[in-house]
Amino acid sequence: MPFGYNGRVLRVNLSDERITIEKPDEKFYRMYLGGEGFVAYYLLREVKPGIDPFGPENKLIFAAGPLTGAPIPGCGRNSVGAKSPLTGGFGESEVGGSWGAELKRAGLDAVIIEGKSSEPVYLWVHDGEAEIRDAKHLWGKETGETQSIIREELGDKLVRVASIGPGGENLVRFACIIVDLRDAAGRTGMGAVMGSKKLKAVAVRGRGKVEVHNPERLRDLTRWLNQNMDKLAYNLHNYGTGVGMDAGVASGNLPVRNFRDGLFAGHENLDARTIKRTISIGMEGCYACSIRCKKIVKIGEPWNVDPSYGGPEYEALAALGSNCGVDDLQAVTKANELCNRYSLDAISTGVAIAFAMECYENNILTRKDTDGLDLRFGNAEAMVKVVEKIAYRKGVGKILAEGVRRASEIIGGGSERSAMHVKGLEVPMHEPRLKRALGLGYAVSPTGADHAHNMHDTGLVSAGPMLSSLSSLGILEPIPLEDLSPGKIRAFIYYVNWRVLDNSLLICVFLPWDFNQKTDIVTAVTGWNTSMWDLMKTGERITTMARIFNLREGFTKVDDWLPERFFSPKQDGVLSKTSLDAENLRNALELYYEMMGWDKRGVPIRAKLEELGIGWTYEYVSNMFQ
Amino acid sequence: MPFGYNGRVLRVNLSDERITIEKPDEKFYRMYLGGEGFVAYYLLREVKPGIDPFGPENKLIFAAGPLTGAPIPGCGRNSVGAKSPLTGGFGESEVGGSWGAELKRAGLDAVIIEGKSSEPVYLWVHDGEAEIRDAKHLWGKETGETQSIIREELGDKLVRVASIGPGGENLVRFACIIVDLRDAAGRTGMGAVMGSKKLKAVAVRGRGKVEVHNPERLRDLTRWLNQNMDKLAYNLHNYGTGVGMDAGVASGNLPVRNFRDGLFAGHENLDARTIKRTISIGMEGCYACSIRCKKIVKIGEPWNVDPSYGGPEYEALAALGSNCGVDDLQAVTKANELCNRYSLDAISTGVAIAFAMECYENNILTRKDTDGLDLRFGNAEAMVKVVEKIAYRKGVGKILAEGVRRASEIIGGGSERSAMHVKGLEVPMHEPRLKRALGLGYAVSPTGADHAHNMHDTGLVSAGPMLSSLSSLGILEPIPLEDLSPGKIRAFIYYVNWRVLDNSLLICVFLPWDFNQKTDIVTAVTGWNTSMWDLMKTGERITTMARIFNLREGFTKVDDWLPERFFSPKQDGVLSKTSLDAENLRNALELYYEMMGWDKRGVPIRAKLEELGIGWTYEYVSNMFQ
Repeated sequence: MPFGYNGRVLRVNLSDERITIEKPDEKFYRMYLGGEGFVAYYLLREVKPGIDPFGPENKLIFAAGPLTGAPIPGCGRNSVGAKSPLTGGFGESEVGGSWGAELKRAGLDAVIIEGKSSEPVYLWVHDGEAEIRDAKHLWGKETGETQSIIREELGDKLVRVASIGPGGENLVRFACIIVDLRDAAGRTGMGAVMGSKKLKAVAVRGRGKVEVHNPERLRDLTRWLNQNMDKLAYNLHNYGTGVGMDAGVASGNLPVRNFRDGLFAGHENLDARTIKRTISIGMEGCYACSIRCKKIVKIGEPWNVDPSYGGPEYEALAALGSNCGVDDLQAVTKANELCNRYSLDAISTGVAIAFAMECYENNILTRKDTDGLDLRFGNAEAMVKVVEKIAYRKGVGKILAEGVRRASEIIGGGSERSAMHVKGLEVPMHEPRLKRALGLGYAVSPTGADHAHNMHDTGLVSAGPMLSSLSSLGILEPIPLEDLSPGKIRAFIYYVNWRVLDNSLLICVFLPWDFNQKTDIVTAVTGWNTSMWDLMKTGERITTMARIFNLREGFTKVDDWLPERFFSPKQDGVLSKTSLDAENLRNALELYYEMMGWDKRGVPIRAKLEELGIGWTYEYVSNMFQ
Repeated sequence: MPFGYNGRVLRVNLSDERITIEKPDEKFYRMYLGGEGFVAYYLLREVKPGIDPFGPENKLIFAAGPLTGAPIPGCGRNSVGAKSPLTGGFGESEVGGSWGAELKRAGLDAVIIEGKSSEPVYLWVHDGEAEIRDAKHLWGKETGETQSIIREELGDKLVRVASIGPGGENLVRFACIIVDLRDAAGRTGMGAVMGSKKLKAVAVRGRGKVEVHNPERLRDLTRWLNQNMDKLAYNLHNYGTGVGMDAGVASGNLPVRNFRDGLFAGHENLDARTIKRTISIGMEGCYACSIRCKKIVKIGEPWNVDPSYGGPEYEALAALGSNCGVDDLQAVTKANELCNRYSLDAISTGVAIAFAMECYENNILTRKDTDGLDLRFGNAEAMVKVVEKIAYRKGVGKILAEGVRRASEIIGGGSERSAMHVKGLEVPMHEPRLKRALGLGYAVSPTGADHAHNMHDTGLVSAGPMLSSLSSLGILEPIPLEDLSPGKIRAFIYYVNWRVLDNSLLICVFLPWDFNQKTDIVTAVTGWNTSMWDLMKTGERITTMARIFNLREGFTKVDDWLPERFFSPKQDGVLSKTSLDAENLRNALELYYEMMGWDKRGVPIRAKLEELGIGWTYEYVSNMFQ
């Protein structure tokens, strides 16, 4: 039972339990690829504007990509998308592990969940077949127990499970979907959409073979990676993410106390090197990956961290750590483990807690509001307790479960100034006062403040593959971090095209292949007669489709903007004398629109849609041109 | 003395005899490549708007490209550019042979001729050195004699000569530059600019080696071509251009009697197969080319055609043949030989004569005007005589030497309706009523009606490399010839990007490599870390720069239009019931502007210039935005 890049799309309606299979043609795969591209396509085509993200009209799309399951590092991933309950717009997030590869081996590229079940269910997909199964006995359970029970009742320990815990069930707006217990489709609240559909899990098992057009070329690229591991991925391979917290403080990139401060004495505690030295018991990898950047950690009393939930990534270390003023590694690791148990996005969770802490310090929230917790910055125990409160919507957690935008609207009293979000999505752990193109990226990403639809703005000099990639696109000189010149906007657009491709092809962004090598991988796996041009245009196409989805939902230029805080310097630290300049950013934003072929309000012009081969989307924006 | 892709640029001022050498950096080569790209750069940067094309302020640029001289078929070419005396705008034309490769072996990528000599001179370039030499004894001579004398006096039979004959000397506005006697930088009157500078020839000899980054890859591609010659280039290899005149009549593509008619009984006489059977004495090739598509022909009394001038290409066969209603192959071949002797563009010459014939048949010109010639369509002898009259500006030739636009202004009396040109450049031998995207291309090409900055609109199904090329760019379905839909405009833009790359890399468009293979060739020769994206963007960059040059000279949207004739059907033949629709073309033109990132008047917007990395050109158009 071999499957090439094009398997099938499974459609499951939970309202009437109808299950159907579709087989898109090659042109469809070439145009939309998979992952984020599929999400953009199906949301735009099939989800009407204005619907309730928690209603049956929302669709939850699990999608692998054309590379998924290929025997090469970085290709075990999948993407999950839906209208986001956090932003009300385009929701999409990717996740590592092996679930995506397993889906592919089961003969499927994507699963579209429609409708809403009246009782808890889970979906069992195996070798091209699908079954909706009762999950009443699983409801309320954490992700770990859920996975165990499912594997047991299906009698197969190799079943891969994507599931939600209490966070998703309780419709925490930033609930995530947990895969293989360690990996999260984290951003934009996909776990809450899953919860709203009463879908506890999607369990997958496949025994098919993923066909590859040119296995030899993949072997060459894997060999090259393995032979150059020390040069290309030393830190990732040995420590995982989170190495260099000292550099984060020194450059100003590390968020401290809700993006307010720069100095953070305890940064060393949170460094991945410290983890390796103290709580680590090994490393693991996603499907077929030799980098093996996933930490396994174990902590005894009092925190009792279960190794099966994995260790904290950089985002969690910063969000639950420095951004909450917390330098207690064990507490941060516990909070991270709870996020995985409960299916909460660690970034949004950390930013929500930091928001509450700042409100508490500003006397906007008091001990009465916090159920007696002394919720000042740096209180590690309180931080961990609030994670639990959020998952179960208890006390202050009930408000924070709404995300910081809604929470600040509920709390009022000037708390809006502490609500660090764009379009409702909490800001991740990279400082836009330092990385200015990344700041622009937060403003314009269709998902809100998101580093996964964004530029890894490292100054374009440090990272070899990035420099090589940009050079291959004709960007021939490094551009400084603080630059928001036209040349930087161009580099930003080019880079984001590929970031969206990573999300759609589903290849891990950590893999140190440059864009030419990635193009080779696409050709080697699929056999397509493609090119960098074709792929870059596809990235642009998908970004544009996500934009249209948001425009149709009523988003305007006003929503493409950053929290006010970023336009003032940090209270202390290296960025205490500099910040984003609003006029600079405004100019950059307008130039970005124009370079994208959008009008002054950020609406794509017809010629651009036609040039991208998606003239069919014009009907969705035509009424915006008066 | 090895030279890589980047040799040097020689600058020769004929007014003060200053000779200098410049060495651009790698970024410059990556951004502008060579050939048309160099021409666009130097004209835009260095030639002020409004200057007289025949004045000392005009510059004449001979440019090879980064591939020139590489040991692979199709890479012996060079380009010549200047402000055109025919259009008053961007002038540029490419030529085959081996002159370009010789220039490269002499250590140079380009020669920029500035100023104006008071006496006839020629330039002698050899192994990195240059010398301005007296040419008084050559003035008035035909190209063949010129070449012989130069080789003799330099004592080297291997010297390659680019020269003008009487046509260029007498400032015939469509005079060309002849290379190796057989090949012409034909369009836009570059020979007249050369004549205006009193520059009789540029003689080149080099003994350097052209360095290649990856010779193995070039050998593979050459081997692939040679092994598949019968499949990929059967007609070209065996007959050269001009096979299938019957199909030209059957489809309506062949221009007949000044684009007026469709039926042409004598088409068989003009077919390259007939040439092979009758007057051919062999085939020759350009530098390192195994296709060898150049006809050698010999004719005795009464026409006496000298084999050293080569045989007629398709364009000459149609322009001097069917388009003048002439089906006498020997006469057409003689006229073609005269064009090469005198350095006249065979296309413009043929169209100018056809214009005069139509005027004659319409009694706008009479025997008095034609020095007694019975200048009706089909009069072969008269046609040949007029070629000579044009070269020496005698009688009716004096008017026709101005090109059909100026000639019709001089003649008046409704002759404008017979003047087949765009922007002053005579229309070449491909029918826009049939090939509609090509028609759009005539309208928007910066050089005027030109098939060398245009799409080979073959319906996208017949040509394998084209289908493969467009597929690799994401254009996944064939588009009919008559289509001017948004999808066709997109394909047109993508294709023209590569056409301009062919003109700038200087690789012959006849080579059957697809765009991915050509990208490979660029990488193999230069070692650049480039990609299809980078190259396509470079094509777009160069088109945009040429556009700006024209805008600065006062061209407007009005100039992007076709002769009225094309909006009516042909008098007879297969296109007697159909023609271009003005509204369709207008819509296509507007969509083209928008897709190119130009405003409604065809002025590139700033964001597009910045995105192409040529923000420096904005100063040239900024005053056009009010």
